[in-house]
Amino acid sequence: MPNDKMVYFFGGRKAEGGASMRNLLGGKGANLAEMTQIGIPVPAGFTITTEVCNDFAKRGQKYPPGIKTQLDKAMAQVEKTMGGKFGDAKNPLLVSVRSGARVSMPGMMDTVLNIGLNDKTVEGLAKAMKSERTAYDSYRRFVQMYGNVVLGVDHHHFETLLEKKKKKARVTKDSELEAKYLKELVAEFKTLVEKKTKKSFPSRPMDQLWGAIGAVFSSWGVKRAVEYRRLHKIPEHWGTAANVQAMVFGNLGETSATGVAFTRDPAMGERRFYGEYLTNAQGEDVVAGIRTPHPINKAGKKNNNLISLEEEMPAVYKELERLYQKLEKHYRDMQDIEFTVQNGKLWMLQTRTGKRTAAAAIRIATEMVKEKLISSREAVKRVDPNQLDQLLHPMFDPRAEKKVIAKGLNASPGAAAGRVVFTADEAVEWATKGEAVILVRAETSPDDIHGMAVAQGILTSKGGMTSHAAVVARGMGKCCVAGCGSIHVDGRKGEFRVDDLNVKRGDTISIDGSSGEVMLGSVPTMDSVITRALDGDKKEKKNRLYLDYAKIMGWADGIRRLKVRTNAETPEDAGRAVRFGAEGIGLARTEHMFFGEDRIQAVREMILAESTEGRRKALAKLLPMQRRDFVSIFRAMNGFPVTIRTLDPPLHEFLPHGKDEIDRLAKKLKIPASRLHETVERLQEQNPMLGHRGCRLGIVYEEITEMQARAILEAACKVKAEGKKVYPEIMIPLVATKRELELQRGVVERVAREVIAKKKVKVPYTIGTMIELPRAAITANEIAEAADFFSFGTNDLTQTVFGLSRDDAGRFLPYYVDAGILPADPFQAIDQSGVGVLMEMGVAKGRAVKPGLKVGICGEHGGEPSSVAFCHGLGLDYVSCSPFRVPIARLAAAHAVIDEEAKKKPGGARKLSRARKGK
Amino acid sequence: MPNDKMVYFFGGRKAEGGASMRNLLGGKGANLAEMTQIGIPVPAGFTITTEVCNDFAKRGQKYPPGIKTQLDKAMAQVEKTMGGKFGDAKNPLLVSVRSGARVSMPGMMDTVLNIGLNDKTVEGLAKAMKSERTAYDSYRRFVQMYGNVVLGVDHHHFETLLEKKKKKARVTKDSELEAKYLKELVAEFKTLVEKKTKKSFPSRPMDQLWGAIGAVFSSWGVKRAVEYRRLHKIPEHWGTAANVQAMVFGNLGETSATGVAFTRDPAMGERRFYGEYLTNAQGEDVVAGIRTPHPINKAGKKNNNLISLEEEMPAVYKELERLYQKLEKHYRDMQDIEFTVQNGKLWMLQTRTGKRTAAAAIRIATEMVKEKLISSREAVKRVDPNQLDQLLHPMFDPRAEKKVIAKGLNASPGAAAGRVVFTADEAVEWATKGEAVILVRAETSPDDIHGMAVAQGILTSKGGMTSHAAVVARGMGKCCVAGCGSIHVDGRKGEFRVDDLNVKRGDTISIDGSSGEVMLGSVPTMDSVITRALDGDKKEKKNRLYLDYAKIMGWADGIRRLKVRTNAETPEDAGRAVRFGAEGIGLARTEHMFFGEDRIQAVREMILAESTEGRRKALAKLLPMQRRDFVSIFRAMNGFPVTIRTLDPPLHEFLPHGKDEIDRLAKKLKIPASRLHETVERLQEQNPMLGHRGCRLGIVYEEITEMQARAILEAACKVKAEGKKVYPEIMIPLVATKRELELQRGVVERVAREVIAKKKVKVPYTIGTMIELPRAAITANEIAEAADFFSFGTNDLTQTVFGLSRDDAGRFLPYYVDAGILPADPFQAIDQSGVGVLMEMGVAKGRAVKPGLKVGICGEHGGEPSSVAFCHGLGLDYVSCSPFRVPIARLAAAHAVIDEEAKKKPGGARKLSRARKGK
Repeated sequence: MPNDKMVYFFGGRKAEGGASMRNLLGGKGANLAEMTQIGIPVPAGFTITTEVCNDFAKRGQKYPPGIKTQLDKAMAQVEKTMGGKFGDAKNPLLVSVRSGARVSMPGMMDTVLNIGLNDKTVEGLAKAMKSERTAYDSYRRFVQMYGNVVLGVDHHHFETLLEKKKKKARVTKDSELEAKYLKELVAEFKTLVEKKTKKSFPSRPMDQLWGAIGAVFSSWGVKRAVEYRRLHKIPEHWGTAANVQAMVFGNLGETSATGVAFTRDPAMGERRFYGEYLTNAQGEDVVAGIRTPHPINKAGKKNNNLISLEEEMPAVYKELERLYQKLEKHYRDMQDIEFTVQNGKLWMLQTRTGKRTAAAAIRIATEMVKEKLISSREAVKRVDPNQLDQLLHPMFDPRAEKKVIAKGLNASPGAAAGRVVFTADEAVEWATKGEAVILVRAETSPDDIHGMAVAQGILTSKGGMTSHAAVVARGMGKCCVAGCGSIHVDGRKGEFRVDDLNVKRGDTISIDGSSGEVMLGSVPTMDSVITRALDGDKKEKKNRLYLDYAKIMGWADGIRRLKVRTNAETPEDAGRAVRFGAEGIGLARTEHMFFGEDRIQAVREMILAESTEGRRKALAKLLPMQRRDFVSIFRAMNGFPVTIRTLDPPLHEFLPHGKDEIDRLAKKLKIPASRLHETVERLQEQNPMLGHRGCRLGIVYEEITEMQARAILEAACKVKAEGKKVYPEIMIPLVATKRELELQRGVVERVAREVIAKKKVKVPYTIGTMIELPRAAITANEIAEAADFFSFGTNDLTQTVFGLSRDDAGRFLPYYVDAGILPADPFQAIDQSGVGVLMEMGVAKGRAVKPGLKVGICGEHGGEPSSVAFCHGLGLDYVSCSPFRVPIARLAAAHAVIDEEAKKKPGGARKLSRARKGK
Repeated sequence: MPNDKMVYFFGGRKAEGGASMRNLLGGKGANLAEMTQIGIPVPAGFTITTEVCNDFAKRGQKYPPGIKTQLDKAMAQVEKTMGGKFGDAKNPLLVSVRSGARVSMPGMMDTVLNIGLNDKTVEGLAKAMKSERTAYDSYRRFVQMYGNVVLGVDHHHFETLLEKKKKKARVTKDSELEAKYLKELVAEFKTLVEKKTKKSFPSRPMDQLWGAIGAVFSSWGVKRAVEYRRLHKIPEHWGTAANVQAMVFGNLGETSATGVAFTRDPAMGERRFYGEYLTNAQGEDVVAGIRTPHPINKAGKKNNNLISLEEEMPAVYKELERLYQKLEKHYRDMQDIEFTVQNGKLWMLQTRTGKRTAAAAIRIATEMVKEKLISSREAVKRVDPNQLDQLLHPMFDPRAEKKVIAKGLNASPGAAAGRVVFTADEAVEWATKGEAVILVRAETSPDDIHGMAVAQGILTSKGGMTSHAAVVARGMGKCCVAGCGSIHVDGRKGEFRVDDLNVKRGDTISIDGSSGEVMLGSVPTMDSVITRALDGDKKEKKNRLYLDYAKIMGWADGIRRLKVRTNAETPEDAGRAVRFGAEGIGLARTEHMFFGEDRIQAVREMILAESTEGRRKALAKLLPMQRRDFVSIFRAMNGFPVTIRTLDPPLHEFLPHGKDEIDRLAKKLKIPASRLHETVERLQEQNPMLGHRGCRLGIVYEEITEMQARAILEAACKVKAEGKKVYPEIMIPLVATKRELELQRGVVERVAREVIAKKKVKVPYTIGTMIELPRAAITANEIAEAADFFSFGTNDLTQTVFGLSRDDAGRFLPYYVDAGILPADPFQAIDQSGVGVLMEMGVAKGRAVKPGLKVGICGEHGGEPSSVAFCHGLGLDYVSCSPFRVPIARLAAAHAVIDEEAKKKPGGARKLSRARKGK
């Protein structure tokens, strides 16, 4: 073991650990220690370090030597603080064992409660609780949980026995079972465990404790945890700590309770205390969503008329308010807390940074700046660029006709429509085929993560705002309606019912995560508040959300170094992107302009021409149209650079492929069908991705590049003559050798000289290239000699570096990501150790020859936060992405600066924020 | 100018230059100087350096300052030595200007003869020559040549005037034209030039000289020279020297002559003086192949009964013999010499290393070792590995029925069959479509190079063994029948005639470059002498060619460091490869085994199975067949390592694609046709090259790898149990990440443990991977941790590095190579600055982690000499190539060692050979 100290005590107002020891004690352990130190009433306990977890795995599920002594000592301290004795028959102390990794992984790993109960200690507990029933209920729960979590006996076996017992006792609720029945159940549960595991149930409390700690450590390695880590990029080697803590009971009757709360509203960010609780219940009951919880205060009584904690236990609620304010002030962020009330005494079980929607993140961050709790720089970091997406994307059109069939909790905002599926596997299967799906479940569990990840939205019939479905969906920035009690899900039949309506697998529904509405059919969507405001809607410009968004983005723009451009080829998209904050066009794909009804004919004539002369004739028809395109783009981008890529796709993409279509086209073009069939066949390629495309077209058919260069430069001259600024940057695609670029450069320069001489307007223009082939990156020093700028085409670069066709990857790439062969889809986040190495080489070699060389990226990665950070690190000048991703890229670019600064200063991030606290 | 001295004189027995100054003076200039120094009678002259050529180009066709003084001084020395005066009306000295690069580029650049003639000097010449006719003939030739070469007037304009004149004079041969007509012609030629160039023909000899030198320098940059350089990988910056040399005349009547000769037979290598000459002719007449030349000696009278020089001018011949022996001894290699006899006096114009066939190279090299002229190491270097190919490939089956329609000169050995084309462009066009073509021409010129390069063979009706067609074809190692006078080529009609037979464009003929026979149709071929000997033919084992070959290869094997393996998957190929010298199998493609009639059915069942169980069932049928395959390969390769690659191509390659075929297969498999259509459709890929193939198959369908591993290991156990040695190396294809290799390795190791435990035979085996994706090379340090060996798959690596599908490149790659965008087809010779950089990275990163890591190459480049040298330089352990390329690779690997040593020692290669001279 690298560290001799393996066990850290906390309790009373003393703790061996603290908030700074998160890596060693995990988030939960560090927080429990920190809370204890600042005087929060936390049940005493101790944390076994993450190092022990790793060591435990390395030793093949064996504990390191010396740990027993440390644990015994810590347990003695707990006993002293809490006034009980672990394993004592008269005054027994019960403990829980909970996992706690460096970052929260909600519901992913195991927890065992009520450890220390056996046939003897249960009697002592009964006395202490003054209720045999409650004691045996705890015992029953313990045996069930331990049997399931530690000993691996399936949950439903216990449930079957429980249901039988209730039938026998003629009751419907668990809580109605008398002690006698619970006693019987304990015995039956133990027999069940013995039968299933061929071992007797452990009765010695210490054996139980070691078993539970081992189970928690082992749960770091179970499939769902591994999956969650991959999804959230959490390294394997972090490990989890195990927190052993004295049990307090929320189920000792009507003056006991248990609950969870957020210090601010996690959905919209309002500054109001927000939470749920259950009287006479244990903590797991709230999170599991089995009973519908009560709101914590009057303000929270939105969806039902249940009594609130504020009304039921006003003193406790007041104390809770005091504590949550103390916690938020101390941690300087919105907290997600767990508490238990035992016979009227409030215990805090946990506090952690609360997950929130993007809207909430924005509001909380800006408000905390106003409250002088955090700096504007910290505020920028509080908004996850990945989440921003949901705020910018369409919402349901309020004027659209909606057939609302049910209403649940607005668990995670957004609008989603899709076909109904009932299992995670179904969701993946359908999504792989390109179907938008809504995953409908009674409730979700960590086993459903992969299905949730691919669904457009999630609808559950059970569970509250803090249920698994709700928490995970918000984390994913995914639309979710939870606890929609009026629907009855029957997964086996493949349908859900609302009153008399049957919605079957494959039917389309729409769900509104902001209103909680469930609608039949696909409801049309419209732009988001922010998008509407950015697009000029005066009313929305006064919207609180928009104003906060604008504040955050303004701060971010003040911090970032990377410029952000957009990929657009219509003046509409270009204009919107500018409103979204784009500082130029990084990629205008001229071929998109070729598909218009008015152009495709001329394009086809060009392809079918059998001589340069014939091609020139057809191209001459395209010239005025292309020129018009560029004129309107240049006007829209007044003052910003516009990078225009010459024709890229293989020519056959412009021809029809089916027999009928070919025949029809031949008739239209008045040529023999056989000739057209022959041409289509001749142009067909085995691997079009690696075929006759990009600059290979412009080199063999110089006249195409010529026409495009002419259109660009004539348009530039025209717009410049109008008194606007124009900065065309002409970009040559698919360059593998310097010579290719030289040749295409020669064509463009010749045309430019002609146009400029003729129009007598001096237009500044540059000529650069995509770096999208490995060879271009490898020979970037040569290519740079002929280039004014580079732009990484990471889509094609990823395809060639991996030898992986994006079009064909569907058959195995999802499997690869699932099985952890790849940490992420390399078409979404830049593969830094493969593609990234070539990018680094490209930048270094290019700038070695031309120190000031402008380098950008225009692959789809340009709008993905981890990729933006990588590009910042490489020293690129700009990233370019689709208009809707521009704000994301701006924010991510600011994050990159802050993270970089934090990395530079030892222990940086934290110190930085501390230093700015007084601001 | 980097060097102040720009002009180097030679003449008498004195020369300012010498053989060691080849880079500065060019091959011809250095040799003229060297020959002069060792006492060979060379007409005096001077050489203007290659540096001036480069400088001339840089200055935009202007001479550097100071050159005039140096030239004037050298000219004065020439005049003094030769006893004439340049431009003098009474005793005029005429000079030639010839190009001369560092290496010979036959016929590629310009030559101008008879410089110094004008209306005055021609009279002086007439007197000196004692023949007005000869003087005016020279004058006429000069104006024609100068007008064409220097002033750019097309050849045919002069020819038209000449033909007219002959008609008018009622003669058929040029030599029959009287002085009067020649005088008229000179005037007409000058008028023609003035009309075409709008300038009068230069009459001042010095103007003529500077013009000619400029033309020679400029000819370095003309298209055909650039093309030749690309083909022979000669750098641009070498430049050419210009050799100005006093003219001597072979056309002064019947005691004058001009000729070319080889010091040994360039076709078969026999040690006999071999050459051709023409009486009363200038040098260009022999090379151009316009008149059929006479053999130089009686021994050479093979194809005709023309009188030889030996008989016609015995004294001159004796002197020539003395000189050639002196030259060969001096240069220690077979020489290609040019000479002129002027009024009975012998002048040597040039000597250079003679081009030769592979057979000749082998014989000359081994004989020169026997003669103690060169070392065995030098002998190895004297055989070009590229040429070796022609000796190993099939020849016409002597027992086959042949319809011989004509017989020409056996100009370059080999057997070729193909469809007749008449122009170089046609040849390229047809060859691009995959047609084998024979290029048929009256005679070839440097403009035909691109057509010759793609043709199977060349057939000409005119020209001798030293004609352009013959020399170039031998250089290319290409079959050629030259001077086949009985055929009449009519390119315009698209046919050639032999007697009454018309052979049309597109008809198939066969030509035998070893016998000179031209045959109708495609004649069946059979193995070469060497191949037959290697395959065990006892008679051929005593063949001189085979014995010499074996000697050279034995020496090469003693020198090389690289091992040579073969790519083979049948015991027949494997066995042949071993006889050809292979030291193992570098690539056995298991999928080739899947296509057999007996297997394809089971393979298809496997693909169509809808469950792992179904696939296993089908695979179980394949197992015994695959095992049998491996058993026979292991037996054939007894003691040598065998690298077996697991399944690589996408599954759809094993299914039919046409509707009818699919329907037929469905019937056969007794499944609904619709299902099979659906499967074929589903498996279809956009870019199969980048699709679901390689280890991606073995990972998704583990059971395939499992079956293959089982077959390999069970076979290995069986053969080992027979008492033979087996070294299976299992190779996983298309690995992009370490994890993929780890997973496949896990499968193979598990199967291996099972098999070895069951069979109780311990078989040593290793598991490695192809490095054929950029990402594999980039992350080679990670991958090496899971690999016992690497093998570069340079075919796929080239495809991905360039983003270039080999299947689709046909539409632009030939153009790219033609236009010099790529120096060579990267699928033939490794692209060292792109693909090569990744290979270097792969080796370095792999060995950084595993110092002893075995690394090989199994792409088709493994048998290409420049690529073999590159692999040697990278420190690979072996190359692997097709069986017929094994000897080429062995020889190339020896060359790589010798070249490397030469590079290490300054001025190495030459010193090395000198040092070994006494041996």
